[in-house]
Amino acid sequence: MARFLILNGPNLNLLGSREPSVYGGRSFEEYLVDLRGEFAAHAIVHVQSNIEGELVEAVQRADGAYDGLALNAGGFTHTSVALRDAIAAVRIPVVEVHISNLLEREPFRHVSLTGGVCIGSIMGLGLDGYRLAIAHLLQRR
Amino acid sequence: MARFLILNGPNLNLLGSREPSVYGGRSFEEYLVDLRGEFAAHAIVHVQSNIEGELVEAVQRADGAYDGLALNAGGFTHTSVALRDAIAAVRIPVVEVHISNLLEREPFRHVSLTGGVCIGSIMGLGLDGYRLAIAHLLQRR
Amino acid sequence: MARFLILNGPNLNLLGSREPSVYGGRSFEEYLVDLRGEFAAHAIVHVQSNIEGELVEAVQRADGAYDGLALNAGGFTHTSVALRDAIAAVRIPVVEVHISNLLEREPFRHVSLTGGVCIGSIMGLGLDGYRLAIAHLLQRR
Amino acid sequence: MARFLILNGPNLNLLGSREPSVYGGRSFEEYLVDLRGEFAAHAIVHVQSNIEGELVEAVQRADGAYDGLALNAGGFTHTSVALRDAIAAVRIPVVEVHISNLLEREPFRHVSLTGGVCIGSIMGLGLDGYRLAIAHLLQRR
Amino acid sequence: MARFLILNGPNLNLLGSREPSVYGGRSFEEYLVDLRGEFAAHAIVHVQSNIEGELVEAVQRADGAYDGLALNAGGFTHTSVALRDAIAAVRIPVVEVHISNLLEREPFRHVSLTGGVCIGSIMGLGLDGYRLAIAHLLQRR
Amino acid sequence: MARFLILNGPNLNLLGSREPSVYGGRSFEEYLVDLRGEFAAHAIVHVQSNIEGELVEAVQRADGAYDGLALNAGGFTHTSVALRDAIAAVRIPVVEVHISNLLEREPFRHVSLTGGVCIGSIMGLGLDGYRLAIAHLLQRR
Amino acid sequence: MARFLILNGPNLNLLGSREPSVYGGRSFEEYLVDLRGEFAAHAIVHVQSNIEGELVEAVQRADGAYDGLALNAGGFTHTSVALRDAIAAVRIPVVEVHISNLLEREPFRHVSLTGGVCIGSIMGLGLDGYRLAIAHLLQRR
Amino acid sequence: MARFLILNGPNLNLLGSREPSVYGGRSFEEYLVDLRGEFAAHAIVHVQSNIEGELVEAVQRADGAYDGLALNAGGFTHTSVALRDAIAAVRIPVVEVHISNLLEREPFRHVSLTGGVCIGSIMGLGLDGYRLAIAHLLQRR
Amino acid sequence: MARFLILNGPNLNLLGSREPSVYGGRSFEEYLVDLRGEFAAHAIVHVQSNIEGELVEAVQRADGAYDGLALNAGGFTHTSVALRDAIAAVRIPVVEVHISNLLEREPFRHVSLTGGVCIGSIMGLGLDGYRLAIAHLLQRR
Amino acid sequence: MARFLILNGPNLNLLGSREPSVYGGRSFEEYLVDLRGEFAAHAIVHVQSNIEGELVEAVQRADGAYDGLALNAGGFTHTSVALRDAIAAVRIPVVEVHISNLLEREPFRHVSLTGGVCIGSIMGLGLDGYRLAIAHLLQRR
Amino acid sequence: MARFLILNGPNLNLLGSREPSVYGGRSFEEYLVDLRGEFAAHAIVHVQSNIEGELVEAVQRADGAYDGLALNAGGFTHTSVALRDAIAAVRIPVVEVHISNLLEREPFRHVSLTGGVCIGSIMGLGLDGYRLAIAHLLQRR
Amino acid sequence: MARFLILNGPNLNLLGSREPSVYGGRSFEEYLVDLRGEFAAHAIVHVQSNIEGELVEAVQRADGAYDGLALNAGGFTHTSVALRDAIAAVRIPVVEVHISNLLEREPFRHVSLTGGVCIGSIMGLGLDGYRLAIAHLLQRR
Repeated sequence: MARFLILNGPNLNLLGSREPSVYGGRSFEEYLVDLRGEFAAHAIVHVQSNIEGELVEAVQRADGAYDGLALNAGGFTHTSVALRDAIAAVRIPVVEVHISNLLEREPFRHVSLTGGVCIGSIMGLGLDGYRLAIAHLLQRR
Repeated sequence: MARFLILNGPNLNLLGSREPSVYGGRSFEEYLVDLRGEFAAHAIVHVQSNIEGELVEAVQRADGAYDGLALNAGGFTHTSVALRDAIAAVRIPVVEVHISNLLEREPFRHVSLTGGVCIGSIMGLGLDGYRLAIAHLLQRR
Repeated sequence: MARFLILNGPNLNLLGSREPSVYGGRSFEEYLVDLRGEFAAHAIVHVQSNIEGELVEAVQRADGAYDGLALNAGGFTHTSVALRDAIAAVRIPVVEVHISNLLEREPFRHVSLTGGVCIGSIMGLGLDGYRLAIAHLLQRR
Repeated sequence: MARFLILNGPNLNLLGSREPSVYGGRSFEEYLVDLRGEFAAHAIVHVQSNIEGELVEAVQRADGAYDGLALNAGGFTHTSVALRDAIAAVRIPVVEVHISNLLEREPFRHVSLTGGVCIGSIMGLGLDGYRLAIAHLLQRR
Repeated sequence: MARFLILNGPNLNLLGSREPSVYGGRSFEEYLVDLRGEFAAHAIVHVQSNIEGELVEAVQRADGAYDGLALNAGGFTHTSVALRDAIAAVRIPVVEVHISNLLEREPFRHVSLTGGVCIGSIMGLGLDGYRLAIAHLLQRR
Repeated sequence: MARFLILNGPNLNLLGSREPSVYGGRSFEEYLVDLRGEFAAHAIVHVQSNIEGELVEAVQRADGAYDGLALNAGGFTHTSVALRDAIAAVRIPVVEVHISNLLEREPFRHVSLTGGVCIGSIMGLGLDGYRLAIAHLLQRR
Repeated sequence: MARFLILNGPNLNLLGSREPSVYGGRSFEEYLVDLRGEFAAHAIVHVQSNIEGELVEAVQRADGAYDGLALNAGGFTHTSVALRDAIAAVRIPVVEVHISNLLEREPFRHVSLTGGVCIGSIMGLGLDGYRLAIAHLLQRR
Repeated sequence: MARFLILNGPNLNLLGSREPSVYGGRSFEEYLVDLRGEFAAHAIVHVQSNIEGELVEAVQRADGAYDGLALNAGGFTHTSVALRDAIAAVRIPVVEVHISNLLEREPFRHVSLTGGVCIGSIMGLGLDGYRLAIAHLLQRR
Repeated sequence: MARFLILNGPNLNLLGSREPSVYGGRSFEEYLVDLRGEFAAHAIVHVQSNIEGELVEAVQRADGAYDGLALNAGGFTHTSVALRDAIAAVRIPVVEVHISNLLEREPFRHVSLTGGVCIGSIMGLGLDGYRLAIAHLLQRR
Repeated sequence: MARFLILNGPNLNLLGSREPSVYGGRSFEEYLVDLRGEFAAHAIVHVQSNIEGELVEAVQRADGAYDGLALNAGGFTHTSVALRDAIAAVRIPVVEVHISNLLEREPFRHVSLTGGVCIGSIMGLGLDGYRLAIAHLLQRR
Repeated sequence: MARFLILNGPNLNLLGSREPSVYGGRSFEEYLVDLRGEFAAHAIVHVQSNIEGELVEAVQRADGAYDGLALNAGGFTHTSVALRDAIAAVRIPVVEVHISNLLEREPFRHVSLTGGVCIGSIMGLGLDGYRLAIAHLLQRR
Repeated sequence: MARFLILNGPNLNLLGSREPSVYGGRSFEEYLVDLRGEFAAHAIVHVQSNIEGELVEAVQRADGAYDGLALNAGGFTHTSVALRDAIAAVRIPVVEVHISNLLEREPFRHVSLTGGVCIGSIMGLGLDGYRLAIAHLLQRR
């Protein structure tokens, strides 16, 4: 059995209500039921925070406690050197996930500060991006 | 009776003591007494926080609870994609307020990340900007 | 009794007919009737010109003749050093007004050459911006 | 049964021999055997070309002929407006795949011209990115 | 006897009253008396306009009518392609004059659109710049 | 019978005398005779001004009065937001015309502020560009 | 009798099916019938290729074989130094044609690498741009 | 006896474990024992937080409570206008400290938002930078 | 005996006829006779292509087949990431050659995408650059 | 009697022989005879050096020894912070002189590092610029 | 006993007289007496030059002759690749010192070319920066 | 017999000891013996200086005294307008030589100020670049 952490950043608590044309109409909790069903042999923990420093600490604590991390840092993706430093400081593999295709949106969303220290990223594939991230982390072990 | 939220960001708790030549010598609480007097028929709630994620959550919670929001995001105006996302996700009208004229100050203060998703902004008119924002939100109803 | 000048720049003579989805469907003259009603104790003069140099001269002449100036320089906002110099040369307070939220529009509208020498600005609040500007200029006296 | 096209661009014919520290030591043909095994119920066609115009034409012809397209445009990712136009002109979903994490490499690789017209992208997860792209395209049908 | 035109642009009609710390406390007309005294054998005509197109036409008309032109285009120096085109179209020598040292002021004043088609420029030497320009134009004949 | 307006901006009154190696040696009036001969069934009105605001007003007045507009804004092409706003505000089709190939000239001529709100542009084909513009406007009706 | 070459670049083989809202619903072959009718006394040859190098060679071979060239280089307009060099190397006049108004589209389409070595360009006037280009080339002879 | 505050920002709680090749293998607490030994006559308080707003508040509270502040804002150095504003608002001297030489690292670390409002900075000298900061603050009194 | 490949890119087939003031009046084939005479003990193969992908493949195939490669990629020098990737993927030494001094020409020719993965470059020395490249590759063996 | 220093920088020892089309065909020594004749009541000392540090020291030593300084720093104008610091450190007035019009030349000559700390500058008026500088310094006393 | 070199660049010979509000009113020689008193067991040599090449050579010669180097390169900090290369070529530790806080001054002083090859830097702490540099170099041995 | 000057700039006196992984382990004097052997019929003079102004003067003096100049300006390549001006002022051919491939190194080394006025350059071929430069200068005579 492997353990994975899904870490969601600011405003992802609004999933399902916020801008449904961009993010879809389903809450993350509803999605999580399906996801856990698909990876029934493994543990998937979900943490969400709107506070940059709490995400920094969640990444720090994940080291050693999980086999992999799927991170959607939301708006902090583009602005947080602190989060980048936390990812660079841990040894577990981190996959960056974005629900929408950031390249279709405002120019300031085209630059990812955190992506360069993750092993890779999945973007624009909707909530399915989380499933693919877990599938990759499993296969990578 | 309408309900308005005034949301103040980092360092605005120092108003009255910090750089009085820029921000004036009066605390926000003192000003609030006058403001509530002027709009006596309505409720004006004031929240201040130095933590970006708390401001994000205050914006999220304001949706449905208030008739309008006057936001002075302080230094986060220029750096917070997370706050911008929160404003874009809510339906109540948000007016951006800045006490000083940002165009007279350092170049990094000339760019507002949050302003493009507010309905508009008032800047450089001192504490009076809050009054004008409320006056507009009232008239807009 | 105070005296205020509202100075409107290029294309604002089209208000009510031009791009109503952006600027609304009401002419400035219609709006002016209401505005004068609201500030009945005071004199409000309105001047519009499509010629940069005439706006420069209107600003120059306003000095000493009015208690305050609400300026919507239209497209000259982003290109006129001459207008900026005129504003900097006069002693009466100038408030910059824009009907639409310039930060939602083309990038060349995000930069204001004139704003840095005004006392402040109001933007995106529709025609109500003029009312707020007068309200502030009155309170400031 | 669904039909998928994997379209590989310049230098991907060298996979397994070129810079193995970046791209791994396995040829794409070897990998394809496994991939087809994993999606045995479906048809996966592989085309590689070093010529931009041939990739443009392959994208054009894929429209209607396949249920989805996984595209690794190699160096053309960053320079080909022609390829971007071809993707925008077809109706089948296109997922951009990159074997390495482009954000860790030279700055000119941080910009994707093609990514903004794909539905999304997967990057840095090695050859496994192709598997995830097919898995998503299948789920999306 | 030679004939010279001094052409002054926007806001230079305010000389003596506007920002005396930058531009000095003397009007241009007062200065002109001295200047004409110094070059008593020659004719010096002075034209001022706040309207870009009038300056364009003054430059056009100067061709053939004067032996030289001293031009202080004020704020149009930095923004007027039309004025640049007019200067390039005439055959008389044009010397650009600025009263203040533009390199000490805002960055947008460091760039001159008109300077590249003048024969040269004099800047920062106060009203004396006009005298030096005439002195050079005389010597150049 | 259709009615067309040709609107020429600053310095185009010099055509035939100014920089003949760039603009040719023929005045616009001479050319107009031929042009009217070629489109004898239609009315072609010609207006030239060196003043930005007059061009703004000419564009405003053309709405409804003409079937199409051929605009050579000269140096204002690169600097006039006001002219751009006027074009965007009218409903008749506007074709931008430039006599010379701006891409061969100084970099500041490579950017057109007005071109993005015209239906299209013709550049570098000499005075013949006006004929082509009229030919297109006719065919478009 | 004159001979003209129309050279179309990548994705223009899709005309009529691709993004009809941008490019219209008519194939180039259908349009060509009309065009040849209009210029019945002359020969018009049409070549299309999606391969940059083939376009380079077509330009090279056109020298001496045709009286003029109408070139729509599609996406290569913005990226091909090779095509620019080919145009600069031939002696026949080349007119750049674009069906849509590139200034209304993404910023990377605002820059033309090839346009500076053509004699001029026509843009945004739909398929009619080809007719105007031929009309000009004829008149220019 | 003087009182000093050492304020450490995000990820500095990992000192000793995180990237030892960059930051050394010793925890800040171990180092603090030595530091206090060296300045035995004085009080040195240490606060660490990963939350930007908590650092803002710590700076605010330090005013009047300490004789000087040594601040290592970690990743917030490059992104926090809020922290910059807090430093500018207090009267005690603040010295910026960085353990590594930021000029040897990624370009986004070359820019310090906070440094311009500190009295100065020490960078690249390892943990010894904290000792030097205290030594300077003492000497400065 | 050593074997060398000279690989010439787009438009170099025109050498001797194209822009003789820049590239000289001699065809490459004529020059090659002399060059082979000078290095009579060695084999020099010449390949020219106008198609980027063919150059990519020529570089790939050169690996192991030649002792060195002199590459003049013409216009692809500045735009081809694909060619850069091919050079980086092979083990034989590649020397970049340019006939003209690119630093004297347009700014977009000042940047070489391919040069950073070659061992070095020779530029501006005319056709003699090829001789020097071979001379260096020989001496390097 | 006043004392003036003319300080010439690198390559100005070549005046009269170097690029006469740009700088004229007369040596500075020849010109100096005339200049001293014109200002016969005053002392004019001339120093030339190609070494940046010697110019720095000449500026330092001029303080108190001369009534004014005319400085042509040649190529150091655009690159020398050291020279700028020296000028800023002395109290005598410094006028920057350039023989050619730098705005007509390469872009890197459009920026002056030294000009912002001089009182002003004269440019493009040939050797006559030195005369005008002395004339102004005299008048300024 | 250790040996240290303090190397001061252009204009630092003026210390005590030049801009005392920025650099203080004390000459470096006076300060050196105190500094040598504080590190009485060690040798401190001081060299100052206004000539870039002499500083380059002083750095070269310091290698092996000193235990450490405190370098204040003055204006050369921002412009000298040559000095950067010299520092990179020597093995003794170099600490960059600046008396003023460069981040408070002109933007061109925010970039240090030399800092990236020093071990670190101290800035804004006045003359005390030299003491701290020596203190660190001693502790580092 | 021809005469050639090899002019080496700052830090090239360290060749053989400085960063041997970049520049090789051989001093320039040792290399010069071989070089003179290879060109035994000709005179090769070598000058090295770390002082920019001395290099300027060496270039000036070389005019007429040598048949060609091989210049490695070291760090001044990227910063010296003065050296560029000296090269532009002389008539003998100058070839720029760099031992390492500057395009593989820091971005500020990618720009050459001097290269645009040399006839060409050789870079990245180690000390052999000097031999090739002489070989070309000889052949060019």
